[in-house]
Amino acid sequence: MNLPKLQIFKIGGNVINDNLQLNAFLSSFAKLSGYKILVHGGGKIASEIGKSLGMQAKVINGRRITDAETLKVVTMVYGGLINNNIVAVLQSFGCNAIGLSGADANILTAHKRPANEIDYGFVGDIEEDKIPVKTIDLFLKNNLVPVIAPLTHDGIGNILNTNADTIANTIATAMSNECEVELMYCFEKKGVMKDFNDKNSMLTKISFSEYGNLQRDGIINDGMIPKLDNAFLALKKGVKSVTIMHANAIDDILKNLKPTGTQLYV
Amino acid sequence: MNLPKLQIFKIGGNVINDNLQLNAFLSSFAKLSGYKILVHGGGKIASEIGKSLGMQAKVINGRRITDAETLKVVTMVYGGLINNNIVAVLQSFGCNAIGLSGADANILTAHKRPANEIDYGFVGDIEEDKIPVKTIDLFLKNNLVPVIAPLTHDGIGNILNTNADTIANTIATAMSNECEVELMYCFEKKGVMKDFNDKNSMLTKISFSEYGNLQRDGIINDGMIPKLDNAFLALKKGVKSVTIMHANAIDDILKNLKPTGTQLYV
Repeated sequence: MNLPKLQIFKIGGNVINDNLQLNAFLSSFAKLSGYKILVHGGGKIASEIGKSLGMQAKVINGRRITDAETLKVVTMVYGGLINNNIVAVLQSFGCNAIGLSGADANILTAHKRPANEIDYGFVGDIEEDKIPVKTIDLFLKNNLVPVIAPLTHDGIGNILNTNADTIANTIATAMSNECEVELMYCFEKKGVMKDFNDKNSMLTKISFSEYGNLQRDGIINDGMIPKLDNAFLALKKGVKSVTIMHANAIDDILKNLKPTGTQLYV
Repeated sequence: MNLPKLQIFKIGGNVINDNLQLNAFLSSFAKLSGYKILVHGGGKIASEIGKSLGMQAKVINGRRITDAETLKVVTMVYGGLINNNIVAVLQSFGCNAIGLSGADANILTAHKRPANEIDYGFVGDIEEDKIPVKTIDLFLKNNLVPVIAPLTHDGIGNILNTNADTIANTIATAMSNECEVELMYCFEKKGVMKDFNDKNSMLTKISFSEYGNLQRDGIINDGMIPKLDNAFLALKKGVKSVTIMHANAIDDILKNLKPTGTQLYV
């Protein structure tokens, strides 16, 4: 049986912080035909608003600690400001977007991460087996385009903060029984670079075995490791392709070209 | 042909500001069987957060002026914080809520109110004929319960601030061809009072002709007039019933009783 294609894009803070780049991306995203989902991250604005409210961002090992006040700010900024504005812009481009946080239609149930050495606060780890595939399918079949904010809920009344990469990866995996899922992580570089200082050193492909070597050789660094770990896991669980690419490379896809970027394979 | 019943509740700031009352209301709302929609207003928290951000609320003739900064705050607070939290609480009560701002699924298109004597700023007047009845129907038929924030969009990429009473009334009218719509405006009083100082003076019914008399006699005051004007218009356009009631009176409805409150009729 031929499964329908589903394209899932994740855009991060660097795209969201740059209005021109964001609107260019959304304009292209709106033009893509077929099933599609957009997952967005946060961006500087949450920290800026937190700061204006007199809060100090708490970061341990590169991870933001979500205390009760921070949770309020990210719920406002991710679930309100960023999500609503992306949806309004997509609507202006004729794309029938529908903004969702994890509580909406029960899309992403999570449990609060247990406090071990580090207490991350109100951070949710997704309960993957509870993703309502049929509801997401209902949206797609009715030409509604989910735009998912990096927020989950714990099923007992609380919103939780959750990493957008992980959400993209988890939704992609959950949908891979229903659809042929292509997952695109968009960021500010062309792809994974072999040499950080050489912009022509992009790796066009990385296999899972090469990935091990690249980590050992220190070519793939800290920030990239959780992203790629997740991505390879998604491939192993049935996602058809994962590409790490610049947000602009969506225009390659619009032209039916393979996007410039780093393709992962197992 | 028997149309299915649709119950639309509007809750305002006073219910939202009181966590205990809000949760009690949501617990009862979750238990209601059949098609239902919740429209929520703002509440003090938008002003409080605006204040923390160093903004001053601008109000002319009792109406908030929505400048660009205020628009950001209401988008964050109404569309993010309040909407997400209501949805998360409803989910905890087993109600499959889905939070919507006006841009989501193109539910509420509006045009920015023209600046005449007063420039209200980024305030939207709803384009009633553009409400996608079929999309709302799709949600209801799939047991998704819309929870609508008081935000609309202008179709060219901007979110606008819109009065929640008006949204409730407009959605009710738009759905009245598909459903037998009952509209319940919940607020902090039992209903419309004949004597402001006598809590036993509630009017159980007001006809449209009595409404004229009550206005002339000064019994129905400024704040109530736009609410009731809208409500009578909805009745004339096909909404089956409009009740002005205390949020707690939802428990009468749960018991299949006529809710304590003021019933309007034409």
